[in-house]
Amino acid sequence: MNSPLKIGIAGLGTIGGGTFKLLTEQAEIIERRSGRAVRLVAVAEPDASRMKEAEKNGIRCYADALPMAADDDVDVVVELIGGSEGIAKKLCETAITNSKHVVTANKALIAHHGTALARAAEAQGVTFAFEAAVAGGIPIIKSLREGLAGNRLGRVYGILNGTCNYILSAMSEQGRDFEDVLKECQDLGFAEADPSFDVDGIDTAHKLAILASVAFGGEVNFDAVHIEGIRHVSLMDMQFASELGYSIKLLGVASVREDGLEQRVHPCMVPSSSPIAHVLGSLNAVVADGDFCDTIVHEGHGAGAGPTSSAVAADLIDIARGLKVPTFGVPASELKSIPPVPMERHRGAYYIRLMVVDRPGVFADIAAVLRDHAVSMESVLQRTRDPGEPVPVVMTMHETEEAGMIRALEEIAAVEAVVEPPRMIRIEAL
Amino acid sequence: MNSPLKIGIAGLGTIGGGTFKLLTEQAEIIERRSGRAVRLVAVAEPDASRMKEAEKNGIRCYADALPMAADDDVDVVVELIGGSEGIAKKLCETAITNSKHVVTANKALIAHHGTALARAAEAQGVTFAFEAAVAGGIPIIKSLREGLAGNRLGRVYGILNGTCNYILSAMSEQGRDFEDVLKECQDLGFAEADPSFDVDGIDTAHKLAILASVAFGGEVNFDAVHIEGIRHVSLMDMQFASELGYSIKLLGVASVREDGLEQRVHPCMVPSSSPIAHVLGSLNAVVADGDFCDTIVHEGHGAGAGPTSSAVAADLIDIARGLKVPTFGVPASELKSIPPVPMERHRGAYYIRLMVVDRPGVFADIAAVLRDHAVSMESVLQRTRDPGEPVPVVMTMHETEEAGMIRALEEIAAVEAVVEPPRMIRIEAL
Repeated sequence: MNSPLKIGIAGLGTIGGGTFKLLTEQAEIIERRSGRAVRLVAVAEPDASRMKEAEKNGIRCYADALPMAADDDVDVVVELIGGSEGIAKKLCETAITNSKHVVTANKALIAHHGTALARAAEAQGVTFAFEAAVAGGIPIIKSLREGLAGNRLGRVYGILNGTCNYILSAMSEQGRDFEDVLKECQDLGFAEADPSFDVDGIDTAHKLAILASVAFGGEVNFDAVHIEGIRHVSLMDMQFASELGYSIKLLGVASVREDGLEQRVHPCMVPSSSPIAHVLGSLNAVVADGDFCDTIVHEGHGAGAGPTSSAVAADLIDIARGLKVPTFGVPASELKSIPPVPMERHRGAYYIRLMVVDRPGVFADIAAVLRDHAVSMESVLQRTRDPGEPVPVVMTMHETEEAGMIRALEEIAAVEAVVEPPRMIRIEAL
Repeated sequence: MNSPLKIGIAGLGTIGGGTFKLLTEQAEIIERRSGRAVRLVAVAEPDASRMKEAEKNGIRCYADALPMAADDDVDVVVELIGGSEGIAKKLCETAITNSKHVVTANKALIAHHGTALARAAEAQGVTFAFEAAVAGGIPIIKSLREGLAGNRLGRVYGILNGTCNYILSAMSEQGRDFEDVLKECQDLGFAEADPSFDVDGIDTAHKLAILASVAFGGEVNFDAVHIEGIRHVSLMDMQFASELGYSIKLLGVASVREDGLEQRVHPCMVPSSSPIAHVLGSLNAVVADGDFCDTIVHEGHGAGAGPTSSAVAADLIDIARGLKVPTFGVPASELKSIPPVPMERHRGAYYIRLMVVDRPGVFADIAAVLRDHAVSMESVLQRTRDPGEPVPVVMTMHETEEAGMIRALEEIAAVEAVVEPPRMIRIEAL
């Protein structure tokens, strides 16, 4: 029998507790699958009360995580502290320097320092793994890096934040507005008191930058991600979307073009018939478009103790089995710096809603602005006409370049009869 | 630089041709990802005209596949001939004996001889891989065997045959009947002149037996699969299903119970709101229920040159990268013989449709039979009452054991006013 793989977990919060539970309950099944035992030998956690069970089981307990990274009897450090800087980063760096494998669920850390950490790990001959950082229990990193490795991927996109998808789903299904559903999420404890990390799209952007690196073999470039959140998605736009045959989802989309890499996070209108439109509640989904495999969809729970620890365990079992794959699918030293395509050069279709006081000539003014910027209208929807009252005018535009669309919207906003800032939602071709 | 991995493809039909194309077009990307070249050095194909391009490129050509399995300059034999016996089997056995890795897309072969081939390969220290055998481009074998390896899986199910799903989708969306859509499939060339392999559920059963082995660590046991096809799915039942909030899909379902392993292929009613209900046309999907990951859905193209060769390439890249995982997730020598649960012991909910000539007391007779077999009705639907004409009576039953349900149906069939054999469709709880 091979010698056991010895694990130290740093951080015994929700995910750390889940991983502790998994490694305990599934010890036998994991040993059978790995060909060796995967044994939890150490934990590190500042809150001593969380370490009681570990202590009872003879597991070494550290109040401070860093010394655990120097523990000669630990083979793998599982970093579940979180945060892109500070102790989490230092812990990973130290573990790698000490020739220990690192498994982490920390998307912020990888989004900001993934390339450097992967290079350090590969130079040291150890694994740096992060299946749990993107889409929780969905084994999407492995699928992109190994299962679809024979493909040139053109686009990877997904619903990567369960809180946002829960909010948008509830708005759409129950006709409630954003603030109302957000408050419910906060009361239920699955949105933070300060929800900006989720609802402003930052969490999605972290995960997208990681996916893009694995899919396209480039350095992780979080700073190049265009980020918009869901605060401005209104019930009225959801209803118009539905009438037009679309659902509104917060997507992270990464795609390669001849001139570089587009990475963007923003509310999207997706066809109601597309698989991604049926991903509801707090579920996540990731879609990959490849030249041979065509479209592959993965769907599942993107957060929570169970799914996230399932992903951590998969990384640990890979290490126990002796599987070695470059961190981002190609050797980290060879990751390319792919030029980012700025959002102004994005090409796509658009949904526009204006609130207009209906007067003669208004529509001619708007149409003229669109023409001047070479934006071509596909459809117009104008329902009620209350004299003197602002009415919604909804238009969809054929594929056009973002720069022209934005300039046109600026000019349209200045038209006197347009009484609110225009609302724009990008339509994603699926 | 590492030495190239040298590939021989046996069979240059659709999938073989696709794999040839992939290995040629993606050579550079595969080398970058594998850390070594993956080079096609030999092909074997009885039809010489299919080998012209290979010959032009200096690739060794064999009319007979077996000698290729003895070619000292071939590291991996890719078996794309098909069929559970004969040359395909002999080729795999010979290649393994000669210490060559084997990659195959041949589900019939694995369903019948998978355990023995895996044991031979593992004893010889070579890889026997078959990602392409189940669900085409979807990397489901890898997901089950590695990505979800930290879980105890309870159930794995899926839409595993694109032809059946295409037929059922067209029936449901276009209100056409089975024979009509089948003929269209045959005219379009994606159903065989003898369609029984697909529409009678055998192909699905092959794939299910493989999935079950990987998911639960048992020997492949195709003979234990309960198999029903889709020939008896009628438009009328589809319409009732839709009214009741269900879609009809041909599923392969494998689940572990305390008393053994259930493996069954039959038309299922699934809730219209479930992800699997939205898998339309020729798409495939596989769903895994795990104790930590919860439900994970994979969806994509299950057949065709592109998707299938994407899966073949993934296996080749795994070999090139030196990744070694037991064929079915645990060492083949340790695969358990899990006792099969016979279909009579299946427990589930049921949809029943009777054609009844409405006379006083008929319903009382039917209800008495159900009571006698401890089958509990959940709902009844009886729409039109044409005096003297048979009318459909649709009932759904609460979860019950199959044996009682079947006996009840036999007795109900004997009731004089029941003028056609009762139709039964199992309802799958998702």
